[in-house]
Amino acid sequence: MQTILPETPPGQPSSAALDFDAILHAAARIAPHVHATPVLRSRTLDTLAGCELHFKCENLQRTGAFKFRGACNTIFSLTEAELARGIVTQSSGNHGAGVALACRLRHAEATVVAPRTASAVKLAAMRNYGARVILCDPTQAARDQVSAEVLRDTGGILVHPFNDTRVIAGQGTATLELLHSVANLDTVITPVSGGGLLSGAALAAHGIDPAIEVLGAEPEGARDAHDSLQTGTRISGRAVNTICDGLRAELGTLTFPILQAHVRAILLASDPQVVAAMRLLWERMKLVVEPSAAVPLAVVLGHRERFAGRRVGIILSGGNVDLDALPALLALEATA
Amino acid sequence: MQTILPETPPGQPSSAALDFDAILHAAARIAPHVHATPVLRSRTLDTLAGCELHFKCENLQRTGAFKFRGACNTIFSLTEAELARGIVTQSSGNHGAGVALACRLRHAEATVVAPRTASAVKLAAMRNYGARVILCDPTQAARDQVSAEVLRDTGGILVHPFNDTRVIAGQGTATLELLHSVANLDTVITPVSGGGLLSGAALAAHGIDPAIEVLGAEPEGARDAHDSLQTGTRISGRAVNTICDGLRAELGTLTFPILQAHVRAILLASDPQVVAAMRLLWERMKLVVEPSAAVPLAVVLGHRERFAGRRVGIILSGGNVDLDALPALLALEATA
Repeated sequence: MQTILPETPPGQPSSAALDFDAILHAAARIAPHVHATPVLRSRTLDTLAGCELHFKCENLQRTGAFKFRGACNTIFSLTEAELARGIVTQSSGNHGAGVALACRLRHAEATVVAPRTASAVKLAAMRNYGARVILCDPTQAARDQVSAEVLRDTGGILVHPFNDTRVIAGQGTATLELLHSVANLDTVITPVSGGGLLSGAALAAHGIDPAIEVLGAEPEGARDAHDSLQTGTRISGRAVNTICDGLRAELGTLTFPILQAHVRAILLASDPQVVAAMRLLWERMKLVVEPSAAVPLAVVLGHRERFAGRRVGIILSGGNVDLDALPALLALEATA
Repeated sequence: MQTILPETPPGQPSSAALDFDAILHAAARIAPHVHATPVLRSRTLDTLAGCELHFKCENLQRTGAFKFRGACNTIFSLTEAELARGIVTQSSGNHGAGVALACRLRHAEATVVAPRTASAVKLAAMRNYGARVILCDPTQAARDQVSAEVLRDTGGILVHPFNDTRVIAGQGTATLELLHSVANLDTVITPVSGGGLLSGAALAAHGIDPAIEVLGAEPEGARDAHDSLQTGTRISGRAVNTICDGLRAELGTLTFPILQAHVRAILLASDPQVVAAMRLLWERMKLVVEPSAAVPLAVVLGHRERFAGRRVGIILSGGNVDLDALPALLALEATA
């Protein structure tokens, strides 16, 4: 296992082996700390979608998102000497909270560099879990610069949100659990942003059965993964425009080739479609999910013929949403 | 098993035996139709409450409420000849939806007499599950009169929302499952309205272990159960004033003596306390619950010293709430 040293530029992958075994080891490592989240179903949604939907409820994970899995696997892979240096990460939300909690469990200091535009509840969560939060301008350049400064000043260890084999292996455990709970799924769908969750899902699914179709679900306003896979070139530096605050990152150097090798397609949904799907999950399944988590259901409902009669597993990625902002979110549905 | 005949006045109990065996039989009868709902925990809420909380998620039950259990047990107890007469019930919400779905599963006609002030989403749910809904004035007298008329006109069979042994036995299966999932609970708390859920919980808990403390949780603005147990006289005909739209009924002739025999206390919470607890369940546990379902958590948080260090099971009774009405609900918290 190799850790990322401070001099490694943000976004560079760790080079530990990344395969099905890595996911099995991650599952064993994080089992004492994560929730084995339930897989829930709704006959009403099955009828609406015309297929069989199995929802892996990572919104019910600790910190309210799957991100805790990857953070936990990474932080629990580090030595005491490494932890003593302190952990630094960049995050606008769930990854920061995951790192903060994992660090608290190992009595390590966590510093999260976050854009000042991040969701208030997500910033509060990072702080509640004990992280020091440093706000910066909401550009990748500003984040990288501030992160580099913090790493230089503290000598800390960087934990990248997705371009890290340990993080990807941790995220893959959600799909591993899903496939252990539900036999014979035809398809697994996760949201895609930096690609950590989807890469982990692909490696877990194809480690169990290479015939399982693995799909990504992406907001139309942040469709870099879709276009990257179609063109064969990793797209970077595009402006994004989506309410899905968890899905604004770009694919990494490590995740892009995994998706190229394993993912059948990335399907797109508009923000109003995402809000409509989110409302269904709240109203019909009684689950609080954030917009990003509703994208897979939105793409299923937007491509009913494609999924007709299939057994579909969906990772509900997170549930961190500001209740007081809900009316404004729901109002977007009407713009469909 | 005896069914309630049309000439039986609403509110009269059925006289089938009601004991732990009845709950075991109900569990076997309804198992093919109900969800075995998960029991979820939150370390954050445990820390806030100073005790160990185990939430039985009946908001994730079919129709979004535990009421489906009692309705299902009753409807699946009826003969084909009885079903052919049609089923009639009174409900402002979840019981009506439960009866509607259970009837649909047995291809029987359901008629629900509902107050015209009932929640729009709950009325829509009854109709979606196939019930005929007859609106009446929001008084018990009006409900009884209209119910009597429907029973006379149709020759149907009445299924009372709580004052019926089959309904109570069905509701008890939620606590049975909870206690099978979690060993050695000290306390079980459910909301109390007509007392069906709490009666079933008491019979299930004390059938497993008479030392388990069984508590009711009631809104201050509808405290008839609290006062009835304190005075030893079943209170009836009081005005109620609470946002908990599922908790406005009064104890029945059948449920009151069960509570007298089995329930240690009824604890009260104000509406602002209930809204604060509801917000915690949404934000921290990512569960959509209706106000009525948040009353047990509200009483725990309002009596921390009483529960310190205990292992507490809570029935999250339902999750049927109008998302568009959420801002108005949350605003009530500020009045605390």
